[in-house]
Order: sequence, then structure tokens, then C-alpha cells
Amino acid sequence: MATTEASGGPLALGLDIGGTSTRAVVIDRAGRRLGTGRADGANLTSHARDKALDAVSAAVAAALATVSPASVRAAVIASAGDNNLNRPEIASALASRWAKAGLTCRYEVVADAVAAFVAGTPSPDGTLVLSGTGSLAARFTDRRPAQIIDAHGWLLGDLGSGFFLGRSAVQVALAALDQHTRPGPLGLAVLRTLTGATDFDPSSRQVTSDLVLAVHAQPPVALAALAPLVTAHAGVDPEADRLLAAAAATLLDQTSMVRTAGDATPIVLAGSLLTTDTPLARLVRSGLAATWPSAAVGVALDGAAGAAWLAARSLDAAGAEHLHAALFG
Amino acid sequence: MATTEASGGPLALGLDIGGTSTRAVVIDRAGRRLGTGRADGANLTSHARDKALDAVSAAVAAALATVSPASVRAAVIASAGDNNLNRPEIASALASRWAKAGLTCRYEVVADAVAAFVAGTPSPDGTLVLSGTGSLAARFTDRRPAQIIDAHGWLLGDLGSGFFLGRSAVQVALAALDQHTRPGPLGLAVLRTLTGATDFDPSSRQVTSDLVLAVHAQPPVALAALAPLVTAHAGVDPEADRLLAAAAATLLDQTSMVRTAGDATPIVLAGSLLTTDTPLARLVRSGLAATWPSAAVGVALDGAAGAAWLAARSLDAAGAEHLHAALFG
Repeated sequence: MATTEASGGPLALGLDIGGTSTRAVVIDRAGRRLGTGRADGANLTSHARDKALDAVSAAVAAALATVSPASVRAAVIASAGDNNLNRPEIASALASRWAKAGLTCRYEVVADAVAAFVAGTPSPDGTLVLSGTGSLAARFTDRRPAQIIDAHGWLLGDLGSGFFLGRSAVQVALAALDQHTRPGPLGLAVLRTLTGATDFDPSSRQVTSDLVLAVHAQPPVALAALAPLVTAHAGVDPEADRLLAAAAATLLDQTSMVRTAGDATPIVLAGSLLTTDTPLARLVRSGLAATWPSAAVGVALDGAAGAAWLAARSLDAAGAEHLHAALFG
Repeated sequence: MATTEASGGPLALGLDIGGTSTRAVVIDRAGRRLGTGRADGANLTSHARDKALDAVSAAVAAALATVSPASVRAAVIASAGDNNLNRPEIASALASRWAKAGLTCRYEVVADAVAAFVAGTPSPDGTLVLSGTGSLAARFTDRRPAQIIDAHGWLLGDLGSGFFLGRSAVQVALAALDQHTRPGPLGLAVLRTLTGATDFDPSSRQVTSDLVLAVHAQPPVALAALAPLVTAHAGVDPEADRLLAAAAATLLDQTSMVRTAGDATPIVLAGSLLTTDTPLARLVRSGLAATWPSAAVGVALDGAAGAAWLAARSLDAAGAEHLHAALFG
């Protein structure tokens, strides 16, 4: 096709399958984003397989709208459930979606953390600190995770995550109600958001029951959606400041577990709570600067492009450094 | 029926619907247990309604095996989901089971904490400290909960519970593996129990993935089943001692929130972790004795009998004190 030829040579496809959204991007070797696609978040378990594959198909179709699928010569799929993608029943269902999209190239599967790391730095070695719905700190060597702290999911870990902040915000409200006192601004915002309650008797157990029931009416991970309430109450409610300080301390502690004091490799921040100018990002940045003043701190804004870059690199290793600057510079 | 007449006068039925088991007991006014029944645990949500009602029917049928249902003149049902029992669709389904069992009396619904409290003390006022699958501390006035701390369930609270201990034990194993070190005795026991792994490379992420997957293969609340591993490692693994101390400190802090220093009313211990001679029970008892040396500490062993006593008391208030001594003395 004319569009493809004009962009010059083989194309690379990157996919980033996350809990919040699924993103796809097709790039050429000059680093131009020729097509992008976005669909619902996907959870690649057997249980939700078809919904996840629908999201993948939709994102890929959008990214391929103006390019010939046959020009795509390499692809990398980044996913939190990277182990699941290699399970036979999911791999074969994915292969059939792949063919239906007109794609003929093979794909490699990597952890979403890998795509985030490479999107944030051209360096093969360094540290990733992520806080979104989940959280982790990881040391990368040659663009592979050499050590990961946490990333255990909301039930067992993610102790510096949006889930942690959201759940803690509910606990702040519950603790005040247990004491038969009216919650502070953060707790009141939680109650208003989840139950609609603004006027209530704090010494009645009813409002506590309503709040607990409202939380259980949604999947547990939905608690992460309350993290912006905590952010919004920074400097307004000491409880919000306490929670943000605790999350930042956890992320910095975990970073210290994968970095020695003298480490000068880059640090990449990823996840919605660290890639924008949030109070948590400011606390983490200031802690990182205090301990590793000479380390460059990058931001991973486009995991799908990170995956696409990995795919392009497999086609043209020599051009990879130049391509990275063009994509992320 | 002859058996019933011999036992003398109207009978009372108590039911205790818990997550682990459903228990029923029929008592006469002398405090004799004329019939008992035990069935599966039940969760009285709409979702699991029929299974829960089957358990109730089975426990009630067993308790009524040797007495005439018509002799039962009062009943009390204690349940963690006491609010749910009053919901119309559950109440009407329960009423139909009630009639099918041949019962003609009305029943009153109370929180399971109320049945536990009255099973542990004849005093109308006092404190309940519970740690089983969940946990709470509560102040009772006139046998009604005047203030409850926690009891928020595993997702939001239960911070001194078997769930807390079980989840923390998994986190101990994960923290060691994150550091690429071999877990201590408690962490190894967790790994062996959940994944069967005994020989593994602690610097591989595989064992971490296996452990996280094994936890997610069961409902979250199943983590409480790991609490005995923590108990078994008391004095053996410092991590187990740390977790037990944390759970005890939480329970004692929560007790302090509902009791002033000079409070001399009784304290009732309830829940599987406090009613037997566990390391957690010893820590809690010793903390209670230090702060409230003059308070009697009772144990709630039979919530169903507590419920039955409440039912009997509604028939014969004057005989209630004597009956309590006969039932629990």
C-alpha cells in the first residue's frame, strides 16, 4: 500500500495490555507512529479470555487502519499476565485473532514492566518504579527484570499503589466511624463517593454497614479508583498526607532493595500515579533525588511504543538507539 | 412427645450461623441441651442463599431430632449477616424452611457477636474481643453492642484476625523471595502448603508466581486457614512471633478504644484463635490482665447456646440468671 511504502520499510507493532486500557501502536523505522489504537482494559485469565481478546482485536484493528498488516514484520505484546499469554488455550485463541487481523509476523510476549522500562530510558540497565493500580520496584539488566520487589497484586501486595491509597482512604473513614466521630475531609469524600451520604449520625453503625456494602458491590480492585481522592486531599487532610507519605516510603524502600547507594543508572517512573505531577510523584522524585542525585529520572508514558520499539529493535539492532530518541526524545 | 414433657415446659432454640459452621441447639429451662445440630458454614447473601438455608435446615433438623418442634416457643438466630436475614427475599425463604421444620414460634435475629457475648458472661455490660476468620472489639451495654471496632471484613479490616495472620504469612514468604533469599521456617511452610514446593531456586521469579497463583485459586478468605501455620511457628520463627505480636497489639488497641482504664466489667474472648490456648490468646490475655487486672475474662465457646439462652430469657426473664449458670457454668 502507498502509505506503507512512503513510511519506509518494515513496520513494528507494539501492544500494551493493561488493566485500565489496551493500547496498540504501529511504528516505522524512523519512529513515526503510523497508527494507534486504544480499547478497554483486559485481564488475560481464562475466565475473561474472550473479552480480553476482543479488546486486543479492537486496539490492533485501529492501529492497522491505515497500514498494510503484511508490512508489520515484528510485534511485541506487553502484558501484566505475560505468563498467561503463553498458556496453550490463550496462545491459540490469540493466534487466531492475529490471523484475522491480517498479521503474518510472529510476536514476542514480555511483561508490561519491560515495555514501561524501555519506554522510559534508552539504557539497558536501570530501575523501574511503578505505581498505578498496582505497584513495584524492579532492577533491569540488559532490559530484563533481574529483580522485582512486590507486584504481587492487591490481595497480597501492591503496597505503594493506587489500590493501597484507595483502600486506605476507606479505612480512614471506617476508623473515624468506629470511634463514633465524623470523618475528616478525605473520609467524608469517600463516604459521599461510595454511598452518597453527606448527612449522617456517626455513632450509628448504619453508615459503616452502608460503606462496607458499597465497597463489596464492586470488584476489590475498583478501590484503586479512589486514589485521586487521596491526591486531591494532599495538604488539606493530614490523613491524606499520611497515606501519601506511607506509599512514597514503601516505593522508596523497595527501590533501595534493588539499587545500591552508588548506582548511577537511570530510574524510570511508570504508572498513572508517578507519570503525572501528583503529590505521590513529587514525594517519590524528591526521595530519589536525595539518595541518587546523579541518576537520570525518566518517565514511561507510552508502554505500547516501548513494546513497538522492542519489536523494531529485533528487526534493526543498529538503528535502535536512533529510533529510541525519535520515539521518546 | 414424651421426651419433651419429661424435660419440662417450653423449649428454646438457638442458631449460630457462621462462616465455618452453622450450629443449632434446643434447651429446656433447666439448661439441658436436648438436641444439637451442626452443618456447613453459611453466608447469608442472596448469591449463596439456598446453600445457606440448606445448612440452617440441616442443623435445625438435627437439633429437633428428639424433641417436638411445637414445644419450641422461642428462637434466636445469630448471624454475621444479621442485616441480610431481615431482607424480604431471605426472610421469606427462611420462614418457609422454618415451617417445613415444624417450627411454629417466631424468631429474633441478632448479630453473632451478641450470641458470643452472652455465651461468655451473665453480665449485661462488658467487652467482647473476637479473633477467628475475622476480628473485632466491642463494648456491650445491656447485651447490645454500643460500640464496635473493626469487624469490617477481610478486604477492609479484620486486622487482628486469622485472615490477617494467614495473609501476612504469605507476605513473609513473598518478601524473602523478592530479596532472592530462602524464606524462614514459616515462609517455607506456607510455600509447601500452597504450592507443594520444597526445593526451589529463590532467585527465580517462578516460585513467586506459583505462590501468588495458588492464593488466587481460592477465595481470599481461605487465607485464614493458614493462621495455624503462624501459631505453629511461634517461638520457632521470629517472623511468626512478629505477626502474632502485631495481631495481639491490634486487638488490645481496639479493646482500649471501647474500655476505659478503670472499667471492671467482664471481658469475653471469642473466635477460634482466642477460645483455645493459642499463642495469640496468651498474648491477648496477658495484655488484658496488665491493663484491666480486676476484670473477669470469660470465653465464648458456644454461640448457639448463647442464642438459645437469649430465646429462653424472652420466655422467662426471672429464671435467666440461673439458666445461664446451668448452661455455661
